[in-house]
Amino acid sequence: MEKVLSGMRPTGKLHIGHYFGALKNWVKLQEQYECFYFVADWHALTTSYENPEDINTFRKELILDWLSVGIDPEKSTLFVQSKNLYHAELFVLLSMITPVAWLERCPSYKEIKMEMKDRDLNNLGFLSYPLLQTVDIILYSAKYVPVGVDQIPHIEISREIVRRFHYLYDCEIFVEPEGLLTEVPKLLGTDGRKMSKSYGNTIMLSEDLKSVEKKVMTMITDTNRKRRSDPGNPDVCPVFDYHKVFSTEDEKQEIIFGCKNAKIGCVDCKKILLKHLFEFLTPIQEKRKEYEKIIGDIDDFIKDGQERANTIAGEIMEKVRRVMKI
Amino acid sequence: MEKVLSGMRPTGKLHIGHYFGALKNWVKLQEQYECFYFVADWHALTTSYENPEDINTFRKELILDWLSVGIDPEKSTLFVQSKNLYHAELFVLLSMITPVAWLERCPSYKEIKMEMKDRDLNNLGFLSYPLLQTVDIILYSAKYVPVGVDQIPHIEISREIVRRFHYLYDCEIFVEPEGLLTEVPKLLGTDGRKMSKSYGNTIMLSEDLKSVEKKVMTMITDTNRKRRSDPGNPDVCPVFDYHKVFSTEDEKQEIIFGCKNAKIGCVDCKKILLKHLFEFLTPIQEKRKEYEKIIGDIDDFIKDGQERANTIAGEIMEKVRRVMKI
Ligand code: SF4
Ligand code: SF4
Repeated sequence: MEKVLSGMRPTGKLHIGHYFGALKNWVKLQEQYECFYFVADWHALTTSYENPEDINTFRKELILDWLSVGIDPEKSTLFVQSKNLYHAELFVLLSMITPVAWLERCPSYKEIKMEMKDRDLNNLGFLSYPLLQTVDIILYSAKYVPVGVDQIPHIEISREIVRRFHYLYDCEIFVEPEGLLTEVPKLLGTDGRKMSKSYGNTIMLSEDLKSVEKKVMTMITDTNRKRRSDPGNPDVCPVFDYHKVFSTEDEKQEIIFGCKNAKIGCVDCKKILLKHLFEFLTPIQEKRKEYEKIIGDIDDFIKDGQERANTIAGEIMEKVRRVMKI
Repeated sequence: MEKVLSGMRPTGKLHIGHYFGALKNWVKLQEQYECFYFVADWHALTTSYENPEDINTFRKELILDWLSVGIDPEKSTLFVQSKNLYHAELFVLLSMITPVAWLERCPSYKEIKMEMKDRDLNNLGFLSYPLLQTVDIILYSAKYVPVGVDQIPHIEISREIVRRFHYLYDCEIFVEPEGLLTEVPKLLGTDGRKMSKSYGNTIMLSEDLKSVEKKVMTMITDTNRKRRSDPGNPDVCPVFDYHKVFSTEDEKQEIIFGCKNAKIGCVDCKKILLKHLFEFLTPIQEKRKEYEKIIGDIDDFIKDGQERANTIAGEIMEKVRRVMKI
């Protein structure tokens, strides 16, 4: 079976943006592929090395979020990047053959640097981030990596590094990975800005339903619809983006008509959304509670996955050392 | 006891230049310090990744050379860099806080790139070489690192990285290393050029004495002394540089006088050197033979040292992970 690999940084509880942007797809992929899902804790340091939040604690939260939406540790291999030192070994070895220029020209390198102007990102770790990502992928011979459009250049670098390695050492050890383009529905934060933990405008998967209700009921709508009697425009309303994801075809048609003709108020419109959100979140949160009950030490819980990951990586590393004659 | 750390790349048999430039000092340091001597096999890849010679085999040759000159595995901790993955782990972690500019401005970075124009050294591994070296040193809390003048900037980078880490994570985990300046006598190759394996102009520690005799007897002298009856100038004669290292004060005075007044021929002058070289090399080669007899697998032979090194590094890594909250 072809392998799929994907990772997430342990930087806090996941929200519905993560679900629709990645996790929903992860759950589906489990049925068709042999999946490796990992906690990218070293990656979390590439941009937040200065005030590392407690990555160690977030690890457990992250995996609990995965489990709660249906990631199945019996089907998929779950592991933690930093607990497999072969990632670091291969990183060191591949650094010998990776041109600095390839890393510098990676579009996201400049973009993120621009975005995070408040942070000092002129570090080796940030520069070499696409190499660390390459290592994550090729250590497990992953054929597919779910990506957003902006990450395509990263996959391209991975392929180039693999080709260079095979050429230099005259071998065929790694699999050249391919991006598996994930469609990500547009979902803004409850304040109409980009969803972000730091804005407090997200709906977390594990969020208390009372809190969800409050956030939805105070959510930004079409800002031109000032009064109940004003017609609104669902196309520019963040609430309607949520309906696109959660509501039925009939409901959506009714809302479009009702909103445009001022036949439905925003409160009623939001109540429909809220019903769906509750239906969506309730089973997730119940599953989370079940797992919380049975999981003590998270490392212990994913022990089999970690061992499996380390074994697979160890086998590849033996081949790598052999061709590099080290 | 203060700790000293030093490493060598496994790139072939060592010659007398290595002895007087480093090993002689290593032997002496054993008496005053707790010494860590390691095979820098990953470093060997930073410049020779393209055609890695059999680093794996050279490892044994290198350690045999060390043992033959008096490095004592009971006194010093001998280990192999690539067999301690904590080097790679700390490398990844410290890359997060190491400014690329610090690495780029390292003088040897530009120099070696100039020297090795025939090789493509625009790789991440070569750029980050001073960081890997820093890791080697601080993983063992080494206070002193024997260096030549040209390596002082590397030690300075190591100190800066340590200070930055301590500042960012408000801790005092590492020892700031200091360079221990080693005086290196001038010894050219037998052809008058810089000693280098690739020129075939070196006298190896394990070189057959017949071959040593041939090399010395055909060695370049003062090129202005064409005939036996011409006076010579020891100051510009590579043979005399060797006398400075090997011969007694009386012998040197006699040679200076005899050479300048054409009272001694180059053949006789070289015979004096040869006698000393034989006296120097014979016990080294005998010791080597003894070790060759008892050492089968080299990893097995240095097992205690490797374990000790890995344990010490592992303890430091626990502290590092704790402050980085990973
Ligand atoms: S009725 Fe619904 S879609 Fe229309 S503006 Fe209000 S919240 Fe938005
Ligand atoms: S006599 Fe000795 S020192 Fe003088 S030129 Fe000959 S080899 Fe050199």
